Amino acid sequence: MSTYHPLSEIQAIEYARQIPNLFQADSDLTSHEIGDGNLNLVFRISEIATGKSIILKQALPYAKVVGESWPLTLDRARIESEALIIEEALNPDLVPHVYAYDADLALTVMEDLSDHVIMRKGLIEGNQYPLFAEHIGRFLANTLFFTSDLGKNQQEKKIQQGRFINPELCKITEDLIFDDPYRDAETNSIEAPIRDAAEQLWADKNLHFEVAILRNKFLTSAQALLHGDLHTGSIFIKPDSTKVIDPEFAYYGPMGFDIGAVLANLILNFAGQEGWSTTSESRTAYRAYLLQTVKDVWTHFEANFRALWNQHGVDRVFQAAGYQDYFLAELLKDTVGFTGAKMVRRIVGLAHVADIDKIEDAAARERAQRLALAIGTSYIRTNRQITSIDELIAIATKEAAAERGFAL
Amino acid sequence: MSTYHPLSEIQAIEYARQIPNLFQADSDLTSHEIGDGNLNLVFRISEIATGKSIILKQALPYAKVVGESWPLTLDRARIESEALIIEEALNPDLVPHVYAYDADLALTVMEDLSDHVIMRKGLIEGNQYPLFAEHIGRFLANTLFFTSDLGKNQQEKKIQQGRFINPELCKITEDLIFDDPYRDAETNSIEAPIRDAAEQLWADKNLHFEVAILRNKFLTSAQALLHGDLHTGSIFIKPDSTKVIDPEFAYYGPMGFDIGAVLANLILNFAGQEGWSTTSESRTAYRAYLLQTVKDVWTHFEANFRALWNQHGVDRVFQAAGYQDYFLAELLKDTVGFTGAKMVRRIVGLAHVADIDKIEDAAARERAQRLALAIGTSYIRTNRQITSIDELIAIATKEAAAERGFAL
Repeated sequence: MSTYHPLSEIQAIEYARQIPNLFQADSDLTSHEIGDGNLNLVFRISEIATGKSIILKQALPYAKVVGESWPLTLDRARIESEALIIEEALNPDLVPHVYAYDADLALTVMEDLSDHVIMRKGLIEGNQYPLFAEHIGRFLANTLFFTSDLGKNQQEKKIQQGRFINPELCKITEDLIFDDPYRDAETNSIEAPIRDAAEQLWADKNLHFEVAILRNKFLTSAQALLHGDLHTGSIFIKPDSTKVIDPEFAYYGPMGFDIGAVLANLILNFAGQEGWSTTSESRTAYRAYLLQTVKDVWTHFEANFRALWNQHGVDRVFQAAGYQDYFLAELLKDTVGFTGAKMVRRIVGLAHVADIDKIEDAAARERAQRLALAIGTSYIRTNRQITSIDELIAIATKEAAAERGFAL
Repeated sequence: MSTYHPLSEIQAIEYARQIPNLFQADSDLTSHEIGDGNLNLVFRISEIATGKSIILKQALPYAKVVGESWPLTLDRARIESEALIIEEALNPDLVPHVYAYDADLALTVMEDLSDHVIMRKGLIEGNQYPLFAEHIGRFLANTLFFTSDLGKNQQEKKIQQGRFINPELCKITEDLIFDDPYRDAETNSIEAPIRDAAEQLWADKNLHFEVAILRNKFLTSAQALLHGDLHTGSIFIKPDSTKVIDPEFAYYGPMGFDIGAVLANLILNFAGQEGWSTTSESRTAYRAYLLQTVKDVWTHFEANFRALWNQHGVDRVFQAAGYQDYFLAELLKDTVGFTGAKMVRRIVGLAHVADIDKIEDAAARERAQRLALAIGTSYIRTNRQITSIDELIAIATKEAAAERGFAL
């Protein structure tokens, strides 16, 4: 089994059976491949007698997106597995447990989270997750702090950084988030009714200037080990539990990119309420919930991050008076800028989100798209002037009111 | 010869003889060890019949500084050799040629530059080098541009960055430049007469805040492959030639750190003219030469860097209107901050410079030390407000006038 080959369901069962301390020696196991087949095989292996189940996730040596196929490094399975192990050590309740990793097969064996749902789906269904903000705020604080020069031995951080050099997956982000949406790129996917808005993006020189600054941060600012793709499709959730999955884009980058990914996807759903809410009251209520969650994510993140800094800071110099406040003020600005960049790419770039694209009513979908672009571009344009999370929320509220011609 | 052991002079000759296409098969070779023995062995191997000579530089597995000895990775020989090869490819006339590198012996065989002098010595002797600013400005522009995301394939840059993870030597910089001078550290070396000035450093909260920002940039800003130790002791010079040597501190860091190292050492010599100039006229003239050189280094760097960006920029997004100006304005600020940090550490930190320490007259030496501290701390305090190289020069002029109580 030591040469790479994509597993069959039978081979997945054989593989699972040999992992120590997982299943009974002779018990019946079933296997179902539940992935979408674009990037990975995902097998759920269940023990019939006990109901116990695990996930085998195997990377495929290519990526399929909208019919295209291009080669993609299997090393991303190592990166994902190592990132999960680091994240789990820092946040045992917020990451699936990794039972085993097989480098030859690019295979990770991990906890089955079938009792959770993908958060994007949960939000589209209008569910509320009152513990989410605390969970993800804590996840972000722990992971970003303890992998950074603030909370990790700075020589060990450099060595870890070397293990997370991730050129191929970083290039996907560099192209799809920080380049293509701002030009008439073949990879873009733009619905005809908002073509005019896309063309405005391509002509907006102030926007391009700010995107260049954000792109440069993504390329050069090695602050912490990022998840790298922390949208609501990378989060499994149920009312009492949040689990962060799929960190194959992990690399050492700017902290605000991960925080911004979370906020962007909450606000994309906020925009999507043009289509999902059935009454203006339910729209107002769910939007209020989403914006409160945005605020709470930042607030929990900041409180946890400051507490870690004060209790576990490894660097004497970074205890300088005023520096923590300065650092968090800069981080908020970065977060706002990356939030905007992550929103814009989901409207005009290659990969969209169901929160917007699955709205069946064309007029509502267009309103949602225009609203997401208005909020996203406002974040990008203003990010370096933002001084509080309330300003980020006020921009969403104001653009939503402007889009509808009346109050939220 | 494949296991590491420090070479004897005889072994150095044997090693040199086996390198292809260097010396005649049976010619007489002589060897002299000319290093200071603190970090490396340096053998000059000469062919008696032709006068041809080369340098064998072998890393020692420890560092000796002021009587202390601590283990130090031999991997720095690989880093130095690979950095030299990259720098030479970009600047064939400004870097010694590398004939061979032996990983097992931590040994680099390179061009002998005995017809050059160490620039620090040349400046102390009062020499002027009219080509230096053009040479080093071009070296900095080529090296920093073509190893950065501006001028290098961004995926190849990441892989190269992984080869220059350099934790041990970075830690020396982190401690000796960005920490110890700002506290009463055992490693500091402070002459008794300026103890009060050192104590002011330790109490200055505004300074500590700015040092924290600079330290963070050194730790996280992976802009380009730096030399990492580009003081005037790492430059061999003669009137018509400049050669940059000893890049064992090379790593991916903030561009301004290398530029600042050059400027700092010019301005340390400027301060040292309290002791070296024999008349006020010669002091005025040599200081004017040094400040003109500071200005010319930046001007040549900037002109070359902008031309490279315009002609060889690899990144569409970074062509955004105004971004090049913004990038260079930020880089100047960084440069000023790092210039200041590099000056302060040479007055109160572990390792000093001959430009100041070798001044025999105690009163003149103290004046030079206080002047260097006044200029360096002013750079650190004001770096984020500086908008032109002339402001950096004006600070040096003003502090020199204040130190002497009358005009420069």
